[in-house]
Amino acid sequence: MAPDRLERQIRFILEIDALKGVLRRSYVLDGRRPENSAEHSWHVAVMAVLLAEHANEPVDTARVVRMLLVHDIVEVDAGDTYVYDTTGAQAKSERETRAADRLFGLLPKDQGRELRALWEEFEEGRTAEARFAAALDRLMPVLHNVHTAGRSWREHGITADRVIARNSRMSEGSEALWKYARSLIDGAVAHGHLAPSRTRG
Amino acid sequence: MAPDRLERQIRFILEIDALKGVLRRSYVLDGRRPENSAEHSWHVAVMAVLLAEHANEPVDTARVVRMLLVHDIVEVDAGDTYVYDTTGAQAKSERETRAADRLFGLLPKDQGRELRALWEEFEEGRTAEARFAAALDRLMPVLHNVHTAGRSWREHGITADRVIARNSRMSEGSEALWKYARSLIDGAVAHGHLAPSRTRG
Repeated sequence: MAPDRLERQIRFILEIDALKGVLRRSYVLDGRRPENSAEHSWHVAVMAVLLAEHANEPVDTARVVRMLLVHDIVEVDAGDTYVYDTTGAQAKSERETRAADRLFGLLPKDQGRELRALWEEFEEGRTAEARFAAALDRLMPVLHNVHTAGRSWREHGITADRVIARNSRMSEGSEALWKYARSLIDGAVAHGHLAPSRTRG
Repeated sequence: MAPDRLERQIRFILEIDALKGVLRRSYVLDGRRPENSAEHSWHVAVMAVLLAEHANEPVDTARVVRMLLVHDIVEVDAGDTYVYDTTGAQAKSERETRAADRLFGLLPKDQGRELRALWEEFEEGRTAEARFAAALDRLMPVLHNVHTAGRSWREHGITADRVIARNSRMSEGSEALWKYARSLIDGAVAHGHLAPSRTRG
């Protein structure tokens, strides 16, 4: 093995440490601080190990796990874009492509290509693995909101119609998890943790 | 699928959120705060994806990744034990066994058994996967120390002889990574970031 190969791998590993400083809008469950994208990535990866049986189609769990481990790495340069921030979403794609060029470019070529392909597969959502990974990535903030009395939803004025519109694609990866999430969303409205809609709320 | 099965899986997923609040002795690379065990677990899992080629024996990478995703979960109840804390290490095993009983016991039986077996495999270090996973878990704090000018080593008065004694078992999982780590440790001593030994330092 060329020593340069290990150096490049380590350089990438050190570089992505910064994902621990990228804050999301959701809170850790004890409510003390916002969650960061590194710990979120761990959490959804464990979720994949446990919930793969609920995918609509049989999935390669190891591939889903790898995809979720790398799905947010571009945020090291591009930052986290809030799912309900549609303005941010327009510039998001450009920023993330530049970030992917730089970050995956640090790795030996074969590995850079492999990780970038995983990230693109996740973003494009055309495979069963990508659709299931995206379903988990959507379910997690619903769980976090429901178990912090809707804190992030309330802080950002998000209403149930938007939560449902944003998350209903969860059903493309897992009907079972979307049905479950839907019941949690209805429960949050019933408990007053989520306003039903902007016009009615 | 019994609805109870999904409820148990979600209960476990919510419970392990607390790993984000378990602080380690190492710092995130920007030096602003101690690292937590959830983000550390993500980081070593990504490391496994990238560095598997450096294992002494061929390893099932997906298994190493799963092992690293769950290797610290018992800390939700048992807390993190500093690797250089030999007093803590005596009580560690008992605390962690109780934690494993409770935490993995939240899951459906088959999954609880599977995750517990992965954790035990990691702790026992008898398979190629466990030895390689442990090597990565040892390499990470060396990297963090080296790239924060030995901060955690200096704060705890750790000397090079102890770092070498504690980490030389890395070679059982990967000779290549231990050789690399050894060069980093020597460099840290040369730069004055790590005292050579208590008697000479």
